Amino acid sequence: MTNIPHSGRTIHVHRDQWHVAWHNRITPIATIQSGETISFDLLDASCGQIGADSTVAAIRTLDFARVDQVNGPIYVEGAAPGDTLEVEFLDLQPAEWGWTAIIPGFGLLADEFTEPAIKIWHLEGGADGWAEFAPGIRIPLAPFCGEIGLAPSLAGAHSTIPPYRHGGNMDTRHLTTGAHLYLPVEVPGALFSIGDGHAAQGDGEVCGTAIETPMRASVRLTVRKDRPVNEPHFMTAGPLTPRTNTAPYYVTDGIAPDLMEAARKAIRHMIDHLQHTYSLSRADAYMLCSVAVDLKICEIVDAPNWLIGAFLPQSIFTR
Amino acid sequence: MTNIPHSGRTIHVHRDQWHVAWHNRITPIATIQSGETISFDLLDASCGQIGADSTVAAIRTLDFARVDQVNGPIYVEGAAPGDTLEVEFLDLQPAEWGWTAIIPGFGLLADEFTEPAIKIWHLEGGADGWAEFAPGIRIPLAPFCGEIGLAPSLAGAHSTIPPYRHGGNMDTRHLTTGAHLYLPVEVPGALFSIGDGHAAQGDGEVCGTAIETPMRASVRLTVRKDRPVNEPHFMTAGPLTPRTNTAPYYVTDGIAPDLMEAARKAIRHMIDHLQHTYSLSRADAYMLCSVAVDLKICEIVDAPNWLIGAFLPQSIFTR
Repeated sequence: MTNIPHSGRTIHVHRDQWHVAWHNRITPIATIQSGETISFDLLDASCGQIGADSTVAAIRTLDFARVDQVNGPIYVEGAAPGDTLEVEFLDLQPAEWGWTAIIPGFGLLADEFTEPAIKIWHLEGGADGWAEFAPGIRIPLAPFCGEIGLAPSLAGAHSTIPPYRHGGNMDTRHLTTGAHLYLPVEVPGALFSIGDGHAAQGDGEVCGTAIETPMRASVRLTVRKDRPVNEPHFMTAGPLTPRTNTAPYYVTDGIAPDLMEAARKAIRHMIDHLQHTYSLSRADAYMLCSVAVDLKICEIVDAPNWLIGAFLPQSIFTR
Repeated sequence: MTNIPHSGRTIHVHRDQWHVAWHNRITPIATIQSGETISFDLLDASCGQIGADSTVAAIRTLDFARVDQVNGPIYVEGAAPGDTLEVEFLDLQPAEWGWTAIIPGFGLLADEFTEPAIKIWHLEGGADGWAEFAPGIRIPLAPFCGEIGLAPSLAGAHSTIPPYRHGGNMDTRHLTTGAHLYLPVEVPGALFSIGDGHAAQGDGEVCGTAIETPMRASVRLTVRKDRPVNEPHFMTAGPLTPRTNTAPYYVTDGIAPDLMEAARKAIRHMIDHLQHTYSLSRADAYMLCSVAVDLKICEIVDAPNWLIGAFLPQSIFTR
């Protein structure tokens, strides 16, 4: 599968070796051969501003200049513009705690949730463990990194908040251990960085945060000359969401001539359902959607109305 | 679960008992008690204009005035505006053939696919059977009806092409046998209709058609006074897509500040992948996306760019 033989060496990246922009002028912290393995010790997406004993005060004082930092960059020998960097996720281990927050101004329903909120999670059992949301509701962990990207060819500093064609904040829950991600290389050496550990998340990450956690991540980086990609591609590790897709799903539809409005309606209806059925507060329901509910496009062709469903796995309810 | 006791009677609806608009003045073809079962013999979505031996000529001459007809309406005793109609899918049996088409002017990439195309499928094994796309590529059937709806309170005739809050052309692949759908009742008697049999479809139905097929559908209709809904809700029959979610998925991402553009990019990349990897024509790749590829919203909060993935189940490749 690889184009260049490799040594089997492992490079270790410390939690302090981070930066907060996609920029092709940041000095690499290490240089590796194609096919080598790198293990990262990643702070959570708040860059250590939030801890296991934090309260909502930490959201009120959050310094956004340090949010969504990524560790790296790693220079990969032989990677040239037009190549593809294959990222194989070898091991992803969350910490024993995590956080989810509503951050004013951020999220799918930012206009409706204007007050900050935070939930601190105790994470049991490592990568195959669980996070209890409330008695009778527990989320199976499925760890991945939200931020995985390469430096862009475009000059200057580019925010780490959005994703780009060269990766970045993809927040894709399916990039779990065993998945292979393919990113387009834009600059010599590719300049790979990673961060934003998530212990679990629903498709969409609707409140803007997942179960955010410090993460130990090991990845193998391989230069591919044989499979150009224009935007990220990936192969999942196996069947989708195997730990949650074990029971029926309850679904609320949003139907609208605009996909964003359809998604907002679907999540609003799901929040109502969670409040009514499980006696959750509105803020808790929104955060539960972000960590456990999947947004799917059911139809996108029956003009003028599109249909998006918010899918709630019944498997998270244990009684 | 039901609010009103029922007789267990089954009503049979013939394939000629159809109409082509959601309209609260269409005379009901039958009146039932809440909790009764109805079995429908449904023509395909072309209303019989396309058959097992059709060629692309049938697409060129398709009379759109008869497309997406629905059978009904059924008046359900006791259903009043503000109630919910529960639709339980008891049995869904496709015919032994189906069709998929590219219809000019229709579909996610209508501007790029301007020539008509058609594929006629042989469907083997009934509801649990298979449709062979090409040697080495076969789609497990997962039958459902695209059109399921109630009459609106709004006066006049409303097209059966889009979905609405009262249902309609929802084209939701997860409404398979065993699912329970909840629709808001807007008029006395609910006025239920159904149609548009699909033997299989991906989330999105991107080319505008699924594996379209005549269908025998049995549903139980129950008036619910205890659970109002604003838009359709449903509970799936079990885990999602159990016959395809048995192996990894290959995913192509579309990243853009507009969800529609992100979806279009994701499907364009998937078409490229299918052409390159499996030597399919561009039209065949587009149709395969429509019947087998799922669109998911991976993130919708990392402004200004959203990420939609097109998920191709590797389980459809048998060699």
